[in-house]
Amino acid sequence: MDKALAQFINEMKQTIRDPKRMLLDQADRASYAYDASFGFYLPDVVIQPTASDEVAEIMKLANRYQVPVYPRGQGTSLSGGPLPVKGGVVLDFSRWDTTLEIDPEDMLAIVSPGVLTAAIDQAAREYGLMYPPDPSSAHVSTIGGNLAENAGGPKGLKYGVTKDYVLGLEVVTPEGAIIRTGGRTVKNVTGYDLTKLIVGSEGTLGIITEAILKLVPRPPATQTLMALFADMVDSGRAISKVLTAGIVPAKMELMDQASIAAVEAYEPRGLPLDVDALLLIELDGHPAAIAEEIVKVERLCKEVGAREVKVAANEVEAAELWRARKLVSPAIVRMKPTKISEDATVPRSQIPAMFQRLKAIKEKYRIDLVVFGHAGDGNLHPNIIADVRNQEEMERVEQAVAELFAAAVELGGTLSGEHGIGTMKAPFMEMELGEAGLDMMKRIKASWDPNHILNPGKIFPEPGQKLVLRHD
Amino acid sequence: MDKALAQFINEMKQTIRDPKRMLLDQADRASYAYDASFGFYLPDVVIQPTASDEVAEIMKLANRYQVPVYPRGQGTSLSGGPLPVKGGVVLDFSRWDTTLEIDPEDMLAIVSPGVLTAAIDQAAREYGLMYPPDPSSAHVSTIGGNLAENAGGPKGLKYGVTKDYVLGLEVVTPEGAIIRTGGRTVKNVTGYDLTKLIVGSEGTLGIITEAILKLVPRPPATQTLMALFADMVDSGRAISKVLTAGIVPAKMELMDQASIAAVEAYEPRGLPLDVDALLLIELDGHPAAIAEEIVKVERLCKEVGAREVKVAANEVEAAELWRARKLVSPAIVRMKPTKISEDATVPRSQIPAMFQRLKAIKEKYRIDLVVFGHAGDGNLHPNIIADVRNQEEMERVEQAVAELFAAAVELGGTLSGEHGIGTMKAPFMEMELGEAGLDMMKRIKASWDPNHILNPGKIFPEPGQKLVLRHD
Repeated sequence: MDKALAQFINEMKQTIRDPKRMLLDQADRASYAYDASFGFYLPDVVIQPTASDEVAEIMKLANRYQVPVYPRGQGTSLSGGPLPVKGGVVLDFSRWDTTLEIDPEDMLAIVSPGVLTAAIDQAAREYGLMYPPDPSSAHVSTIGGNLAENAGGPKGLKYGVTKDYVLGLEVVTPEGAIIRTGGRTVKNVTGYDLTKLIVGSEGTLGIITEAILKLVPRPPATQTLMALFADMVDSGRAISKVLTAGIVPAKMELMDQASIAAVEAYEPRGLPLDVDALLLIELDGHPAAIAEEIVKVERLCKEVGAREVKVAANEVEAAELWRARKLVSPAIVRMKPTKISEDATVPRSQIPAMFQRLKAIKEKYRIDLVVFGHAGDGNLHPNIIADVRNQEEMERVEQAVAELFAAAVELGGTLSGEHGIGTMKAPFMEMELGEAGLDMMKRIKASWDPNHILNPGKIFPEPGQKLVLRHD
Repeated sequence: MDKALAQFINEMKQTIRDPKRMLLDQADRASYAYDASFGFYLPDVVIQPTASDEVAEIMKLANRYQVPVYPRGQGTSLSGGPLPVKGGVVLDFSRWDTTLEIDPEDMLAIVSPGVLTAAIDQAAREYGLMYPPDPSSAHVSTIGGNLAENAGGPKGLKYGVTKDYVLGLEVVTPEGAIIRTGGRTVKNVTGYDLTKLIVGSEGTLGIITEAILKLVPRPPATQTLMALFADMVDSGRAISKVLTAGIVPAKMELMDQASIAAVEAYEPRGLPLDVDALLLIELDGHPAAIAEEIVKVERLCKEVGAREVKVAANEVEAAELWRARKLVSPAIVRMKPTKISEDATVPRSQIPAMFQRLKAIKEKYRIDLVVFGHAGDGNLHPNIIADVRNQEEMERVEQAVAELFAAAVELGGTLSGEHGIGTMKAPFMEMELGEAGLDMMKRIKASWDPNHILNPGKIFPEPGQKLVLRHD
């Protein structure tokens, strides 16, 4: 351990209110060395703050001794957001769950960073309200992590993503000032929108210590439908048909043939294996409206050539239909141990073209590729299944991932729809943004964090950095 | 004219493709010296660019000679956004309306900066789509100006504001680089959200040369209702009751007694003069849903004590009801020539408290105050009617405005919900944001525009700057 770091730890011991919230033991620290992406990086110390002024003190000390700091929620990041890639301090926010207030009149929630995402919607439900963002990790992830990464989810199609629900923040800046951004109002044009800049900045511009979240009235009813397509292109046409007919479903999820086969092998559900694609559509809203709309959706799916359409008669049947989608992730990790979950996103009209590109990539690199995800908003999840111990296979996977990103950008899309850039996608940033675009982002980072100590090694590529999924 | 400016103009003459798009004549320049707020500032030159690379060239030259540049749409800003307060160059974008493309499949519009806002929704309508933001100036203002100011409007309650519909931008940076932010997808977490940072930055961080806007399906039906309240507090309770009943109207507009009286004096419509408040509510969506909801809204208004509720039987009756609201602005400028239109915004629950504060301010400073606006989202428009030639009255108005801002911030609200900060509210920024919060905004500005030549004198207060509405 270098001298500056030792001094930092020493001073920190005197600053922290409860020494038990500072972890130095290697066994403890090892739990903070990874997330749901790739790589193992042991931090030098873990601190579990529970107050904004404590975080501010930590940042001031960290600047004095030039020690890197990495905020971390529950470590469910798929892009390496909380990985301590340059050593230093992990700030573990998962213990800071003291505030979860619902204000039904102003229709908002006030939350501290360690609150579990799903708990917010659960608390809102008691007032007939809803917190829509629903990343699949919602029952495990903290809202702090969701805010840092601007998490999405299936409901993004109708309701938008985490950022669309953030009215205000309390933030500790990289140099340890405590600021408030936004507030309790939906409309706010007082100066630059720091709220929306910080949400999704992957913990590189500030540490979120409180958030004011917008809630919406809970829709009184839902309807679910499953449609099977012999041709993937027809499923894309069905999506367009429904949306241009003036119907915005809450969710429009797609599973390809490989996803269906994986689910059937894992837990047989009677799904046909000879279809190209399966669409799951959920409508929500007024019962009279969606009762009429579901009939229209069924008709539209059949018009574009759906082989079969099944409308759930009740909530039990709806849950049954959704189970197939829920099983995709557990089913595919049974095939091989390593899952590379991507979220390259294309304009909705380019989904059929993206499928063609993915098919070609799968064949060219001989990889196990499964495609599912939020087709309604173009946010597919191509998942590559591999074995990290197989160096030769992982090399092919790396090349396939690079080609997959290039395809998304060529089709007018983006590297990441909801997982974030982190360490994984940093090498591809300039391809999408150009040198000038990336430079404007770097200027903001440099002006806010002149010592570059807050979550370094994320978003911005190191010179010559390449995607590496292989272990040494 | 100083030497650097003369050199700039000289080089510019050789750069611009059509010399007719460069205005040097004083009579021409005078049209660019004011907007819909206060003050008269003659620019040294007006340039009407029609291509991104032309704008980039202008910015590079302007940096070389340190000449200030002010982007301008149609000059409908209520906060001084386009005023050339430090002399220099006004860039007039109102002639650049070459692109207005609708992509129905991806549900988006691609527009150049000079397109009139209302034209976008009109073009979208042909495809059954809608561009929701509806500032009252939509038929006059350009989308470029709306983007710079993040314009709102009545539909903000259900649909959000301009920013919520911007997927991507082409932007010329203050130093003349051309960058693209965001793209054609709804989900995008690739790096910092420059799109949402630039929208609403009042033309201080970049010049928007193209925008990709999200469209939504056009709701098939609307319903309108008017409710009259003897007590303002009851109207606030009605708003809460409706929203917490799970109904989100497209619009919820309020008029106070003074607004009603002004309209009746201007064009008698048979509105009672002895009510405290009038609510106008528009529902949109599926016909069956809103037919049921309008009955529920009527019942809820009566339950909290509405004196009278009138449901429009058809579109003609609905237009009749809305006419009262539309007449407020023309009616009040008949009272006195000078209108100071504010947009201080409070959390919805604080509307009754804000009304009490406004009443006290009105009495204390003996001003003519009329209150109306978007009550559903707490975005009221207190309008002070005065005569700019009356120095003593204007002094009282300045004090009243300062107290009005303080009240909004004290009640948990913000200086501006949709008009922007500009020159008018800059002196009050630190009150709301604190020194540290304002400093983080200044850092971004300094890192992007090191010469401080893009729209100087806006958002950030000069040392010791005070609100001055009086002419010299």
